[in-house]
Parts: sequence; structure tokens; C-alpha cells
Amino acid sequence: MANQDDQFKKVIAHAKEYGYIFPSSEIYDGLSAVYDYAQNGVELKKNIREYWWKAMVQMNDNIVGIDASILMHPTTWKASGHVDAFNDPLIDNKDSKKRYRADVLVEDYVAKIEAKIEKEVTKAAKRFGDSFDKEQFLATNPRVLNYAEQAKTISKRLGQSLEKEDLADVKALIEELEIADPETGSKNWTDVKQFNLMFGTKLGASADHAMDLYLRPETAQGIFVNFLNVLKTGRMKIPFGIAQTGKAFRNEIVARQFIFRMREFEQMEMQFFIKPGTQMHWYEHWKEARLKWHLSLGLGPDNYRFHDHEKLAHYADAATDIEFRFPFGFKELEGIHSRTDFDLANHEKYSNKKLQYFDPEENKSYVPYVLETSIGIDRMFLAVFSNSLQEEELENGTTRTVLKIPAVLAPTKAAILPLVKKDGLPEVAKEIFDDLKWDFQVAYDEKDAVGRRYRRQDAAGTPFCITVDHQTREDQTVTIRHRDTMDQKRVEIKQLNEIIGQEVSMSNWLKKIQ
Amino acid sequence: MANQDDQFKKVIAHAKEYGYIFPSSEIYDGLSAVYDYAQNGVELKKNIREYWWKAMVQMNDNIVGIDASILMHPTTWKASGHVDAFNDPLIDNKDSKKRYRADVLVEDYVAKIEAKIEKEVTKAAKRFGDSFDKEQFLATNPRVLNYAEQAKTISKRLGQSLEKEDLADVKALIEELEIADPETGSKNWTDVKQFNLMFGTKLGASADHAMDLYLRPETAQGIFVNFLNVLKTGRMKIPFGIAQTGKAFRNEIVARQFIFRMREFEQMEMQFFIKPGTQMHWYEHWKEARLKWHLSLGLGPDNYRFHDHEKLAHYADAATDIEFRFPFGFKELEGIHSRTDFDLANHEKYSNKKLQYFDPEENKSYVPYVLETSIGIDRMFLAVFSNSLQEEELENGTTRTVLKIPAVLAPTKAAILPLVKKDGLPEVAKEIFDDLKWDFQVAYDEKDAVGRRYRRQDAAGTPFCITVDHQTREDQTVTIRHRDTMDQKRVEIKQLNEIIGQEVSMSNWLKKIQ
Repeated sequence: MANQDDQFKKVIAHAKEYGYIFPSSEIYDGLSAVYDYAQNGVELKKNIREYWWKAMVQMNDNIVGIDASILMHPTTWKASGHVDAFNDPLIDNKDSKKRYRADVLVEDYVAKIEAKIEKEVTKAAKRFGDSFDKEQFLATNPRVLNYAEQAKTISKRLGQSLEKEDLADVKALIEELEIADPETGSKNWTDVKQFNLMFGTKLGASADHAMDLYLRPETAQGIFVNFLNVLKTGRMKIPFGIAQTGKAFRNEIVARQFIFRMREFEQMEMQFFIKPGTQMHWYEHWKEARLKWHLSLGLGPDNYRFHDHEKLAHYADAATDIEFRFPFGFKELEGIHSRTDFDLANHEKYSNKKLQYFDPEENKSYVPYVLETSIGIDRMFLAVFSNSLQEEELENGTTRTVLKIPAVLAPTKAAILPLVKKDGLPEVAKEIFDDLKWDFQVAYDEKDAVGRRYRRQDAAGTPFCITVDHQTREDQTVTIRHRDTMDQKRVEIKQLNEIIGQEVSMSNWLKKIQ
Repeated sequence: MANQDDQFKKVIAHAKEYGYIFPSSEIYDGLSAVYDYAQNGVELKKNIREYWWKAMVQMNDNIVGIDASILMHPTTWKASGHVDAFNDPLIDNKDSKKRYRADVLVEDYVAKIEAKIEKEVTKAAKRFGDSFDKEQFLATNPRVLNYAEQAKTISKRLGQSLEKEDLADVKALIEELEIADPETGSKNWTDVKQFNLMFGTKLGASADHAMDLYLRPETAQGIFVNFLNVLKTGRMKIPFGIAQTGKAFRNEIVARQFIFRMREFEQMEMQFFIKPGTQMHWYEHWKEARLKWHLSLGLGPDNYRFHDHEKLAHYADAATDIEFRFPFGFKELEGIHSRTDFDLANHEKYSNKKLQYFDPEENKSYVPYVLETSIGIDRMFLAVFSNSLQEEELENGTTRTVLKIPAVLAPTKAAILPLVKKDGLPEVAKEIFDDLKWDFQVAYDEKDAVGRRYRRQDAAGTPFCITVDHQTREDQTVTIRHRDTMDQKRVEIKQLNEIIGQEVSMSNWLKKIQ
């Protein structure tokens, strides 16, 4: 746990120091749970977005994109259920005046019990050494069994109370467990109340009244309200998909874990419109396709797992998460949901427009079912970034910090380095820079000894360093150094474009998993 | 004027019919002055954004990007002046309860006078035929001179009243001119009041109070508050630039002209940090560079002009617009502003952080001056789209509708068309599609006669049609048809990638103006 925390702190510090992520409005001491993408971060984020778009839209004849606005007609959120049901249960401490998510207070209590189990396991493992059988220990140790039973009972009761919206029982549970305000220790709680997570705003300034709007809490509804227009003007035939990337906003009370859960975030969603009854086929299809996309980046298959939802959302008849091993454990990276006709049918009801597809094979119209793939670009960023940050021990006993971002996503593809700042080497290096910049995001760096520049580019995630030395002026060759292996090879200047192009081409990376 | 209106209506209708722009939330009857980008529109918008980013960030060693959040610390907008001064003067009609921008009511009045001048000119031109000298007529005709004098006097008084914030005089002017509510004819007006254009929202739900936030009304401030972090972590040396694309929001009262003035819009801004005193040099530099970027697209040099600001904003010591000939006349497309140290100095004051650059040549620290280039991506979209939509008379007497979007920006680069839906031609066409899709956004279309498909792709803006016919199966050649010339050429399938690549490459287009 301590190691995880340390590693996560390193990730956050490195993200700032190397120009990936800054706290938002930091000169004004920041804005809680909002972050800005810095000069390298913006390029990584752009590349992730582009890699997704290429795989989803460009490669699929039957998937098109859209870019719907953040501000939408408010009835959208009535139809989607967000006005009535997009709530968190909150509780105030009467003494400290602090507000908390009631469910999180209970979950944190459960997490403490689970930590006790982990502690017992660690102790026993130490005591028994190689002969320790964890499974057996968990199944037989009385103290551990007792803890596990407690945790299970509490979790079950919380789940049931939330499902029935029995907020009085959530409060009763907090009081029975004697949960105290984590900051002050007070147990003097108010009732639990629902709090809607949508950010509100007001449109217009007519003399009579302004219109109450919301910042969209998800991009999916922008696709559903445009379904009919895309269907008609795009002459789409089922099955077909509509993809979108864009910002969404949630007024989270507990927003933590860096960019994992932010109040302003960006989604990459695709809604796939299908014939009712075929949803399990497409559910399996997209589970496989999306996992393949992740695996193409080479972050390691062990870092992914599916987590099927046991408790389904009101709109879904099947749902799974692709979880990734973040510095704080396995957590949701992408969701794949069979949404049935829930959304389109509700928009039909509220809009009085027929949101149907005429199926020429069936010779009838129906409201299509929807299979959704939904991934947070910020989480994807964190997955790539945290997985890539490594400390390596070198043969000479020193260590290096290297950011092994897949070359296809790396912000800067190559740095051009003159060995020394004289003898005409900078001029040659700049010529190479001016040639490569037409095709790639490249950097020029002449400051400090070349070894130090290598380390700097390693830590910044640049996959290639191209060094111009005295031999270059004689035979038009340079060395190209690979970030991950530190291997150096002498190549002709005129080969550079081809060499780098092969290594960073999105097509080549996507082809790996075809 | 009637022709302009007709042409503009055609643009709006075509944008919907061919999947470029839909009204937002249209199934709920839309949201005023908010639009969604449809399946082709999203690609055109992405390409515009990418073409700008490549020219500004990728091609310039000393310009980096960022992506700051929409939600920022509220003190940002105090420092920038938006809380106090980002207002429109509004007036209500007491009878109709309608609200208007007071300055627009007066400007519309002036526009009517100017329309009268135009009418006199048209009449005189008709009367005098070839011998008509417009300049002389404008300088001597008593009626026209009288109109011009009226228009000038009114505009001057409005400008002065607004500058002095003498809102009582703006109301007096409306009453003196007997301006009536355009919808009802009533002249029963309230006083003029200032109305702030920022959208407000509330962050968090602490027991005590939520924090009042604004949706950013411009992206520029996201750059200024990150200046210090970029400077340090990016090891920047003056002069250097920070570029950003992203959404901004303004609660416009009079939002009209389709996507020209929207409540939610996207900016592409670059702030260039320079040594104080060098601003006129960089002002000229960026005027030229930005105009060249526009000209590279080949929409025609006559469609652009500079319009220097006579009245400068409070933060500027020089400012010009690149205006474009929209369907409704020449209007601002991009702004180039010398912003002095206004923004950084104010953020210094409000944040108590030193926002300075240590200049090693001068051996001292200073607050840099800023040269800004700021363009609305939606306006750029409208410029490209409206300019590209043409009706052509063909030699055979028919007309065709063609959307001559520059190939580099076109949503779909090529459509692959089997001549007939049999004889194995669709299979060959699909093979070509599956090969080209790795590198380009391409479409496959087999429905209707090939002539009709050509027209459809012309109207959708696809620069190339690739037709697979019976000869293709014999000799592996296809015809490639150019949208703009309608010329068809027989080429080998294996040449397609190279041919299309040359025509759509952003580098090749940018090189045109080097």
C-alpha cells in the first residue's frame, strides 16, 4: 500500500515536472479536481484521441463521428433519467459543517476492515514462509473469517438501502457503525439527502425568465438526440455506430485520485445501433474489439481484466468494465454496456418524434437496441502515463528514469541533438529538424552534455534521439538512439523519415492486433 | 441583399442535408444559437483544427500547445476584467417584455440608412449605365450625402456613449430616433442596463456554500495562468508561444448568423510572449504569417482583407482583424492583437505570483508582452463551407451542386464506387476500400447509378471518386475522377495511395505558401 502510494506520488510529480499535467489555475491555488494538460500532455491526449478515432471511425465503414454541443435542451436530461436519478447520497456533520458522501463513509469503513484482513495475511505469510497457503488461510482463520463476514454484511446492507433509496437506513448504518467525521471525529450527523451531480447554468436573459440548462454529464445523449438526423442524412443501415469525443462535467463530491475522477473530463464514446435480440452477439464482439485495441499499445496483457457488473444500471441488460492496473489497483478504464432501447425509447416519449429504423429485411420499423463502448480519455492518459513511468537500474550501477510511452502516442517523436554547440553541428541538426518537422512533432535540444540530454528525453518520453556529430559532416550519417533499449545505430540522414515513420505510424500499431 | 440571404439559406440547408451541421437537440426543437457538428462536419472541423495545430505548434520550434480546462478559478475572471467589463447593454420593451441589445437596435437603424444609400447607387447605376462613376456619385449626390451624414452622426454618438458607459444617452438616442420594438412596433422602453455575458455555475456542495464559477468566455486566460508552469517545465526562451484550441461560452443576447456567433463555440488561440518594445515587429510578423495560412487553402485572395481597429480594447496597443467575405458580407474571421503586458500584469496583481521572465541577454526580469492570434474554428468552418458551396452550369445545360472544400480539409478523401453491383466489382471495390482506409477517411458507395453517386459525392465535398469497372478485373486499373474538374483518369490501383496522399497531405498544402 505504501509502495502504491509512493509510486502514485511519483507519477503526479513527474507529470508536472515534465510538462504533462498541471493543477488548473495553479497561480490561484488550483481548482479542486480540475487539471490542465501541459505542453507534452496535450500531445499525448491528442494522440490517444486520434488513435481511438482512427480505430473506431476511420477503420469502420459503418461507424461515423459527430461532435455535439455541451449545452443541450434540458428535456434531454429528463428523458435520460439524469434529472431524477443522477444523485449522490450526502450527509453533513453538524459540528464541523463538512459534507460527505454517505456511501463513501461506509465504504471507507469497509475498506478499513479489509485492510485488517490484508494485515493478517501479511503477518501469517511472514510466519509460515514458503509453506503459506493464502487461499486456505482466508478460508479457515477465525479472525479473518469474522472480518470478512462483517465487511460482507455491511456492504450488502448499504447496497440494498441505496437500491431502495432508503436513505434513513444509510444514516442508521452510519450511526450503528459509529462512523465519525474523518477530519474532526464528531459523530453528530444530519439526515442523508440526495444531491444531483449535474452542473447547472442559465441560458439567455429574456425579460421574463432565463432557461435552466445543465452541462452534459455524459456525451452519450448527444448521440441519441442526433440519431435520426445521422440515420437519414448519412443513409445508415443497421448495424451502425456513432462515435464522439468530448467534454462532460460532474459535480463530484469526492473527486480524488488525480485525473482518474475529475469534475471536468473527456469521454470517447461509441453507440452502436443494432437489431433487438442481437445485443449479446455485439456485446461479445465489442468486448473483444476494445480489448484488442488496448492490447495493441503493448502495456502488457496482465494489466487488463474484465469485470462483469453484477448489479446492472437501470438501462442495461449486460455490462462489463475493462479494468486496468492503475497505481492504486485495478479500476475501470472502459465500459461496454448493452443499453437496450432505454435511451431512444425515452427520447421518443419525451420528444414525440419517431426514433425508429425501418429494416428492409424485416419490412418493419423498430427502435434499435444500443451497444455502447465508453472510455474516459483522462483515465486512458493515466493508464498509459503511469504504466510507462519506470526507474531502471543500469549496468554501471546508476539508475535512470524513463517514460516508456508507446512511440505511437509519444508527444515528441524525436529530439535532434548536436553533439557540441560548435563546428557547424547545430546548423546540420537544425536542417534535420526543419526537414522532419513536416511529418513529426520533433524537438531540437543543444543545451548540456549529450548524456544529460538523453536522460532528459528519456524522462520526457521521447522515443528517439538523433545525434549529429563530426562524422555527420563527412558522411551524412547520424546516430539514432532508442529510448527503451538505449541502443544506438548509425544511419543515413535520408533514412530518418522512413525509420521514424515506421515506428510511430498508427496504422502499423493497429495492424499488430489485426 | 436578397441574393446574399438566399445564398446563406442554401448554405444552412445544405449543411444539414449533407451531414455537416444539425441544430442542437433538434428533436426537442433545438437550443437557440447552439449547433452540433454532424458526421461530415466533425471531420471538417477536426481537419481545420489539425491544419492550424500543425502550422502553429508542429512547425514552430518555439511554440508549444496546452489544453486548459473550461472551469477555472473564479479570480481568473476578476483579473482578466471579465467580471467587471464583459457586458452587453440591454434594453427591455415594457409592452412586449422582449429584451434587446441596445447598441444593436441603433446599429440596425444605421444599417437601414446604409441600405438606402445602396439603393440610390443601384438606381443611378442603372440610369447611367457604363458612364456611372460610383465614387463621384457618392461624393456629390445630395440625398446620398445626407444619408451618409446621418449614419455617421448616429454611429459616432453611439460609440462615444458606450465608451463613456453613458447608458442614459444610449436610451435617449433610441428614443430620439423613435426606434420601435422590431417585433411589435412598441416604443415603450425601459432604461439600458449592463448584462454580463459569462455563463455561471456552482462547484461543489459543501455545507457552507458552493463556489461560484464561470464557463470560460475565452481560451486565452487558460494560457496566461499556465504561463509560469510552461515557462519553467518547458525551458522556454523568449520569444515563445503557447497555443490552445478549446470551447468557450458566451451568453449572447443576439446570437444569429448560424454558426458565426454561437453561445458555445471553439477557439484556436496562440499567445506569443515577447520582449516589451518588440511588439510592432511581431504584430507585423503574425499578420503576415496568419494571412499566408489562410491563403494556403486557396479560397481566393479577394475574399480576405485586414481591418485595423480604430478603437482599441483596454488591453491592446494594436489590433487588426482578418476579415473574410461571408455570405452576409465581410466579417471578422481572425483577430491579431498586441495585448501588451495587460493580462500577465493583472494576474501578478491578483495572484501575488511573479509572472516574469528572466532575460539572460538583458540580465533582468520583466513581465513579457503578448502578441495574440485568435480565430474561431466555427467561423473558419463557415468560411470554408460557404465559400465551397457552388452551383455550376455544365456544358450539357444541366447544373450541378458541388462543395469544393479544399482536399486537405475534406471530410471524406475518396469514395470507392463499383460501377455495377455484380460481376465481382463490389468485392474489388471493397478490397480497395480496405486498403485505403488505413491511410485516409474513405467511403464505399454502391447504391444508384454511378452518375448519381458522382453528384452525391460532389455535393458532399469528396474530392475523389474511384470507380471500379469491368476493365479493373482485367488490368488492375480504375478511374479516378476529380470533383472540381470532373476529369477522369485511368490509373493503376497500386498508385492510388500515392496520388491521393499527395493531394491531401497537410505538409504539401502548407508548403504552397512557404
